[in-house]
This record gives sequence, structure tokens and C-alpha cells, in this order.
Amino acid sequence: MEEVLQKVKEASRVVATLNSGIKRKVLNEMADALEKNAKSIIEANKKDLDYAKEANLSNALIDRLLLDEKRIKAMADSLRDIAKLKDPVGKIIDGWKLDNGLEIQKVKIPIGVIGIIYESRPNVTSDAAGLCFMSGNACILKGGKEAFHSNSVIIEILRYVLEKNSLPEDIVSLLPDYSRSGVEWLIKQDKYVDLIIPRGGEKLIKFVSENSKVPVVKHDKGLCHVYIHENANLKDGAKIALNAKVQRPGVCNAMETLLVDRKIAGEFLPVIKEMMEKEGVELRGCEITLEYIDIKPATEEDWHTEYLDKILSIRVVDGLEDAIEHIEKYGSGHSDSIVTDNLKAAEEFLNRVDSACVYVNASTRFTDGGVFGFGAEVGISTNKLHARGPMGIDDLTTYKYKIIGNGQVRE
Amino acid sequence: MEEVLQKVKEASRVVATLNSGIKRKVLNEMADALEKNAKSIIEANKKDLDYAKEANLSNALIDRLLLDEKRIKAMADSLRDIAKLKDPVGKIIDGWKLDNGLEIQKVKIPIGVIGIIYESRPNVTSDAAGLCFMSGNACILKGGKEAFHSNSVIIEILRYVLEKNSLPEDIVSLLPDYSRSGVEWLIKQDKYVDLIIPRGGEKLIKFVSENSKVPVVKHDKGLCHVYIHENANLKDGAKIALNAKVQRPGVCNAMETLLVDRKIAGEFLPVIKEMMEKEGVELRGCEITLEYIDIKPATEEDWHTEYLDKILSIRVVDGLEDAIEHIEKYGSGHSDSIVTDNLKAAEEFLNRVDSACVYVNASTRFTDGGVFGFGAEVGISTNKLHARGPMGIDDLTTYKYKIIGNGQVRE
Repeated sequence: MEEVLQKVKEASRVVATLNSGIKRKVLNEMADALEKNAKSIIEANKKDLDYAKEANLSNALIDRLLLDEKRIKAMADSLRDIAKLKDPVGKIIDGWKLDNGLEIQKVKIPIGVIGIIYESRPNVTSDAAGLCFMSGNACILKGGKEAFHSNSVIIEILRYVLEKNSLPEDIVSLLPDYSRSGVEWLIKQDKYVDLIIPRGGEKLIKFVSENSKVPVVKHDKGLCHVYIHENANLKDGAKIALNAKVQRPGVCNAMETLLVDRKIAGEFLPVIKEMMEKEGVELRGCEITLEYIDIKPATEEDWHTEYLDKILSIRVVDGLEDAIEHIEKYGSGHSDSIVTDNLKAAEEFLNRVDSACVYVNASTRFTDGGVFGFGAEVGISTNKLHARGPMGIDDLTTYKYKIIGNGQVRE
Repeated sequence: MEEVLQKVKEASRVVATLNSGIKRKVLNEMADALEKNAKSIIEANKKDLDYAKEANLSNALIDRLLLDEKRIKAMADSLRDIAKLKDPVGKIIDGWKLDNGLEIQKVKIPIGVIGIIYESRPNVTSDAAGLCFMSGNACILKGGKEAFHSNSVIIEILRYVLEKNSLPEDIVSLLPDYSRSGVEWLIKQDKYVDLIIPRGGEKLIKFVSENSKVPVVKHDKGLCHVYIHENANLKDGAKIALNAKVQRPGVCNAMETLLVDRKIAGEFLPVIKEMMEKEGVELRGCEITLEYIDIKPATEEDWHTEYLDKILSIRVVDGLEDAIEHIEKYGSGHSDSIVTDNLKAAEEFLNRVDSACVYVNASTRFTDGGVFGFGAEVGISTNKLHARGPMGIDDLTTYKYKIIGNGQVRE
């Protein structure tokens, strides 16, 4: 196993210095190769599906596993999109000259070796490999056990294209030990791996964050709030809350808890109840909410819960302070929104809510690398350091200082 | 203990929103208060010194512990310097508008609660507190046990000034448990602490990096190289190597290993031997080096050793590739320099050596926040992520996205 990582590390030095043109060419060839080899991918995928059915995995899981021609085309197109991104490597992000004539440049460079640990969906394999490659990184991938056969074939195809271009195939590598103990081992290899990105369930992310010796950028849960302030345009408030809840309830930037100012609760709650219930949303309210509308009572547990489903908890709050306090206590620092026409309240909320994305008068659903204009998305980081919020390939780089002199020494 | 951190976390929310003007005023008052209370600091410092002598600590350690009027004035002046720095908080580092009218701002904000673990020198206490305060962070400090009394009085004085300004004194806090188990506990408190910065010996840094659940920015060793390329101006090469070794041998940006191209070894080595030995530097060479000059042989151990002393290991290499390979294998990613007049070699070295600071024709001794123009220095990070190389107060911030709309929802 250590030998595998040694090779990935060596390969990382090669991919780090490739020109954008070569990277774009290889990515496009990778896309073509995936489409050309669709048949063998589908065959391998069948093995995974058979195993999944035997193991009685849920239909939702099986659907996420499934690859067909259409989905393989989508994977290929995604690589083609990545090939069009602006190459972050080599960008001079700062530069100045010292009194003694030394020229300092702060330059973006690849991180090195990135370990990505993810679950079931095999399209993540080519996405992750493509994003790492375009940003000049080598990667070691550990997908879901259920997708082992599909992932192996996909990786094989990508490596074949690398080899054909006289590049080290280890630039894209699969972790050989696909078990839990493989992950346990990988996250201790700080000698070879520079960054670990876990994508998946809460348990996986908790385990990796707590045990990794390698720096981790995690893509943790989104317990997002929309707060309807007393000076809100209630029509906008209802529209935004509805969108944040139902437009796509299963994703991390969907709203889970609605906070309603007491001053407008009587007017707002009956309206939102009707709108939400019409969309099939189950509502759970705090004691005060229940004085206004007849819904299920919420428990303490509800404020902590990322439903990822058509369920919404509602709490009536006494003003801005109370709302911010609730978000501080129960939020996950992902995306939170205030609906208000009051400038001071908007500024307070923007400044004091400690989340990656803080909104005024807009749906939390906009937290997305694609929407933000980053092109293909690595994910949405819930880290506070290195990368926060939507991550593009820019966030798969670090920097170094290049200092050019002509004989300067320190006095 | 947990209660202490809860209070620091609460205090961090207050300091995060302070205007620069207030921060500057408080820092200047802190400086005045240190000078005014010099007597009680010196008294407390005596207790630490007595204990240190009883414990038979080395004279060097005792000297580092010692505080007198002059050193207290230096601490105060350092706070005054910090008060003059540009406030990073609130800086808009990027901003754009989406097609739908949403305005996105990427804004620098404080990190939150920063834990700083350091050894003996009590002046670090006021420096660290000042840097965290100016960048809008609360801090929890754990200094050396030997400096407990000095640190306690310094912190008390800083907290008194906070209180006098109606600010929560917990913005600057001392870890109550000053033992190893206190550190062990602190680095697990990711609920309250956002960043740990360990400064000190290799053992401390290794322990913290390997066991922390909180993100760590480490200030690890500097095993720096100077490589004299075949196309070097040898006079510059000798001057740069000498400066990198002897100008201040005990610091992390001093050179520890000199790499000499075989093609100029015969000419260069006798010259550098004479210069180094004149400065009292002990030389240790590889087998080939010994063919040219009569010095002690180097062992494998030498290439791994950060001497922090007037000792230098010398290796003859076969060209650029060999030099880069040596640095890759033995370097610590801190600062490395090539001396050459060959443009292609310079570019190869700059691009391929994976260190925080890579130099052409200059001494490694320039790696320093002050020299780089960052003002007061937090330290020199050997992390690859978040902050790399010299760290100024800018690196004690992270960012958030502020998104301002007028009712936008996602289609």
C-alpha cells in the first residue's frame, strides 16, 4: 500500500508542472474514452448492481449506483466542462519588490496529492479525478465499496489515457484496500497525502475529521435557516422560504428551520402553512408557533436535524438577537438567510452570522459552485480554514513565494 | 475548563465586530499598562527565575525567561507596532454580480478562537494576544510552565485594559491547566477552538499535529538548502552561503546543508571552507566533498539535521536534478535557494522545489514576516494549506460570502 502512495507522490510532481494545454487535451481524451468504453463500464456496473440487490440495498441507493449510456455521457461532458476551466496554477496572486531589490511573487501551485473519500455514486470518480488533474494534483480515490467494479473500470480508462499521453498513470489512483481499514490507513499518511476531502454521510466525515493526520476539508451537513424579520416583505419571505425548502429538499443548501419574527407571526404563519402543505411539506412548530397554526409540535431534536426531506421545523423568535442566537446554537455554518427591508438588520445579520454563505432576501439554494460561477464544483466546504463554502478548482491549490535576487544577503 | 472556553467563544463574537479604531486604542493602552506595571511583571518573573534556577534549567533557557525594564518596553513597543497594522477584517477580497442580480461579496473575517501553544519566552504572550486582538480573534494561550507567573501577570494586565474599555476580558485568556494534559485537552475542543498554532520544539509540534481535532498551523523546523549551480557567480554564491549560515545560525531560515555542483566543486569548496572556518563553522562533507577539502565526513543523519548552530553539511551533487532530489528527500519545505546565472535552471528550481519560499541568488535568511513587509509576524508556517511561509495578521483571518438579493429564488 505504501508503495502505491509513493508512486502517487512521484506522479504528483509531474502533473504539477503540466501546461494547461496538455491538461485540457488529456481531459477531452478521457471524456472520449469513457464514452467509447461505455459498454465495459456498464458491464462492471452490472456486477455492482447485482451485489447491491443481493445485499438488499435500498432502491434509492441502487439508483445512485446505476450507470447507463446517458449517465456515462454526462460524466464525459463533465470532464469536458472541467477542461474548459481557467487553470489556477501559476497565477500570481500578489507581488512586490523590497527596498533591497528582492522581487517577491506569491504564486498559486497545486496542493500535491489529494485523497478523496466518497460514497456510492460512481460519477464522482471521474469528476474528482478530472478536478484534481486540471488543478495539477495527483489523486488517490476511495469510493463506495458498492461501486468497486464500476470505479475500477472508470479509473482504468482514465489511466489508459494518461499512459497514452506519456504521463504517469499514477496521477489518478484508486486506493487498493477498499475497506474501512483502508480509509483508516490513508488518513494517517501525511508523508504522502497533502489533503483529504471526505464526501458522504455524517458518520464518515466525523470519523475522518477526528482521526486524520492529513489536513481535511470536509463537506459536512447543511442545517440552513431562513429568518423572516419583522420588516420583511412577507410575499418575498414566503416565496424565498418555499424555494429554500421544496425546490430540492435533499441537498445541503435546502432550508431545514424557518425562523419567524413574533411581530409578523400572526400574519405570516397561516400563509406559509398553506403554501408548504400544498407542496406536501410536513411542518413541526415550537410552542408559540402552535398558538397560531395547527401543526405537529417540534422537539429539541428537530432544531438539530438536517431532514434532507419535505419536513420543516418552525420557530417564532423575539427579534434579530434571538434569531442569531438560534442560528449560532443549532446552525452548521453553511447557509443562512434573512428576509428584511431593514438595512441595519440586514447588516447585523450579514456580519454576525458565522456561516460560509449569509444571504439577504434570497434563497439559501444559491450556495453552489456552479451558480457562483466557479464552473465544476469540488463540493461545499464546511471548514472555516483553507476553503469555505462552494469550492472550485481554485481551492485545490495552495501557494508558494518565489523570491528573485541578484546576490542579496541579510544585514 | 469547558466553561472557560465557552466564555472565550462568546468573547470572540464581540471582538470580531470591533472597529479598527477601538482595537488600536486598546492595544496602545495595553502597551502603556505593561510599562506602568513593569514592577509587578518583574516581581512575578523573579518567581519564575527562582524556580528555573532550582530546576537547574540551562543558562540559555533562563536568559530567554528573563524580563527586565528593557524587554518589557520592547513588548509594549511591539503592541504599539501591531496597533499600526492594516486591519484585515472586512476587506472585500472578491465580488461579483450574477445574471439574476444577486450580489456576492467574499469578505475577510476573523477566524474566531485561536489557541496558541508556545514555550518559555514570556514576550510571546503579549505578542500573540495583540496579533489575535488586532485581527478580531479571541485567544486562549498556553505558554511554558517555566513562565507561568510572568504570563499570568501579563495576561492580567491585558485583561484589565479590556475591562476598562467595557470589553469582555475573556478576549484574552490563559489556559487554566498549564500541564501537558491541559494541552491534550485543548487540542480536542473543536467545538470552541477554530485554530491551534503550536510554536516550539519538534516534539511539541509533532504531538499537537498528530493529536489535534482542531485545525493546526504549525511552525515546524527549517532544514534549508543553498545550491551552488554550475553557472553560479561563485563570489555571490560564497557570500550568500556564508550569510545563510552565519548571520544568525539559531533560526529556522538559516541554511543547514550546502549543495555544490560537481562542475565547480574544485574551485568553490576550498574558498567556502576558508570563509566558513574563519567564522567558526564546523563543516561536514559527503564522500566527494572530502576529495576536495579536508573536513569531517557527514553521515546520513547529517542531511536530516537542523543544527541551529554553526555546523554545516556539504554535499556535491551532479546537476540540478540531483540537487532537487536531495531537497525533496531531506528538506522541510521551508526555504531553499539556488545560486545561478542560468535562466532555465533558475526557473526549474523555482517551479519544482516544493518549499514555502524558493529563492534565486539570495540568502534564505529573508524568509521573515517583517522583511516581507507584513509588519508583526505570527510566525513562519510550514503548513501547505491555509497559511504558508511568513504569516502576518492577514493569515489570522478566513472569509465568508455575503450575498445580497431582492427576492431571488432558484429556478
